[in-house]
Amino acid sequence: MEQEQLILQERPNGLPDKDTFQFKKVEVNEPEEGEILLKTLYVSVDPYMRGRMSDAPSYAAPFEVGAPLVGGNVSQVMKSNSDQFTSGDLVTGNLDFQEYNVVKADKVRKVRTNDLSPSNALSVLGMPALTAYFGMMHIGEPKKGETVVISGAAGAVGQVAGQLAKKVGSRVVGIVGSKEKAKYITETLGYDAAVEYKKGNVSEQLKETCPDGIDVYYENVGGEISDAVWPLLNVFARVPVCGAISTYNLEEGEKDIGLRVQQFLIKSRVKMQGLLIGDFAEHYDEAYQALEEAVSNGELKFEETIHKGFHAIPDAFLGLFSGENIGKQLVKVADKE
Amino acid sequence: MEQEQLILQERPNGLPDKDTFQFKKVEVNEPEEGEILLKTLYVSVDPYMRGRMSDAPSYAAPFEVGAPLVGGNVSQVMKSNSDQFTSGDLVTGNLDFQEYNVVKADKVRKVRTNDLSPSNALSVLGMPALTAYFGMMHIGEPKKGETVVISGAAGAVGQVAGQLAKKVGSRVVGIVGSKEKAKYITETLGYDAAVEYKKGNVSEQLKETCPDGIDVYYENVGGEISDAVWPLLNVFARVPVCGAISTYNLEEGEKDIGLRVQQFLIKSRVKMQGLLIGDFAEHYDEAYQALEEAVSNGELKFEETIHKGFHAIPDAFLGLFSGENIGKQLVKVADKE
Repeated sequence: MEQEQLILQERPNGLPDKDTFQFKKVEVNEPEEGEILLKTLYVSVDPYMRGRMSDAPSYAAPFEVGAPLVGGNVSQVMKSNSDQFTSGDLVTGNLDFQEYNVVKADKVRKVRTNDLSPSNALSVLGMPALTAYFGMMHIGEPKKGETVVISGAAGAVGQVAGQLAKKVGSRVVGIVGSKEKAKYITETLGYDAAVEYKKGNVSEQLKETCPDGIDVYYENVGGEISDAVWPLLNVFARVPVCGAISTYNLEEGEKDIGLRVQQFLIKSRVKMQGLLIGDFAEHYDEAYQALEEAVSNGELKFEETIHKGFHAIPDAFLGLFSGENIGKQLVKVADKE
Repeated sequence: MEQEQLILQERPNGLPDKDTFQFKKVEVNEPEEGEILLKTLYVSVDPYMRGRMSDAPSYAAPFEVGAPLVGGNVSQVMKSNSDQFTSGDLVTGNLDFQEYNVVKADKVRKVRTNDLSPSNALSVLGMPALTAYFGMMHIGEPKKGETVVISGAAGAVGQVAGQLAKKVGSRVVGIVGSKEKAKYITETLGYDAAVEYKKGNVSEQLKETCPDGIDVYYENVGGEISDAVWPLLNVFARVPVCGAISTYNLEEGEKDIGLRVQQFLIKSRVKMQGLLIGDFAEHYDEAYQALEEAVSNGELKFEETIHKGFHAIPDAFLGLFSGENIGKQLVKVADKE
């Protein structure tokens, strides 16, 4: 049986373009003993994947040129030579971007979405939500009455992070890139205010929406938006640093120049800390339980922006950097059988 | 009896100069019930005082124009109307910069220098050493075999911070501004290597002296020197942010522009945290005990650069920003009686 793969054709310099990606036809292997044959239903496109397209050393090994991209995936088990799964099971894992995968059973785990859409295993019950949970609850530690600001507030992580802070009684202000996103976070998610950075003067907008200063800043974007946050940080503020999407497409040798943070960290004794969910592996159960409960009782709202078809992956990925997505950006590759 | 005060004549814009300071003659009051009359022996000049000369909101209230500067002081009790002290006692506290002070007894405490010079209460057994202790031991948490880098390494805080890290078995590299200071930290203090930033290419020098990357960066200076540190931070590195002396004399409206840190904090999941010793008040006894023990058994070496005479205070203060001092910068105002 033939299938399509999405290959890294060449490493991008700056924003990826059509030369970055290549579709390729390859044979699907037969699963050996202990292996399972998976049919891809959804793939996840995430900003961090941009880092893996470069060969600079980072926390995740670079993708290889000529090899498939790898990322979050929800698949259906088509054939199982393992006693861990049976045909029809829905599973999730980090898999090659192709229509079918043949992997050892321990490369994936069953999705926790139950009656929900399997896509949720890549959004509100998956990596972005865990990232929001650990960044907000383990580093941000918001308290009742505190002011929490989130950049990228309508994105996959931001939409969850703010609701977790609302749940403990914080005031939540989201920074977003459009009127539509502002409406989403205030009306659907219940955030207290929105700052639209494309309107300009983020600093003034933040002062107006955060009259008592900022106690937690959940960092997703970096750049000038964040520079406007530092002067407003309150004493003992916490800054979980989850992402800096504004920097991911810098060209080779280009540096991310802006306001240095030291003076603000000293003045207000701020803790600023980078995170990856893998660092919190021992707390996954705690996080999944909290998220599942919040989703099932309707406390945790979320959106998914779903592109259709395997060939939509490059556009879906690039859409992350133009800010097109509300909530989690996904690609639906096939229907569940 | 008449005495001299050092007054803030006008707020400086950028580097302070002769118009910033003014000497003034005033009468010494008689101590009332519960008060003590103190004769100033040493005053401490510290970089953070620059912040208090401006009226921007910060952790310490601004000095008032026309009023005396205030700072670390060691005095001898000349007359006591309090049962807490007797004439001849040596005390330390934050006092007005003048030759004599009349204060309530609870404004000061006895020095812990015992047989050492009373000046030590402002250096290795005082605020700078406590700052080094809390920043290094409570935030930096160096471990055996780790690489610790300290900027301002030959200064009042840096000279102590590095020795604390050596004591737990870390490799310590100090960044300094002169050959003399490089010699001091490597030969006297026992640091493993020195980087002289005035030689240029701090980035290359750091790569050579820190082949295994950097696990703790104790931040005293900020600016370009620190920009060269960020790319070398190891996974789970810790960055106690104690000072940023390179930024203290920015002119009004001037911003501290350089490399943003977010991408490095994410890549290596770094914790960066500002500190003031006041935040650790409940741990003062622990810190004093550790420092006193290390000084008395000769493990903790230190220098003091001592200017002579009350009129030397402005020059001693300005000398901090030209990096003239090795160890703690102090002014000796009078001999003990």
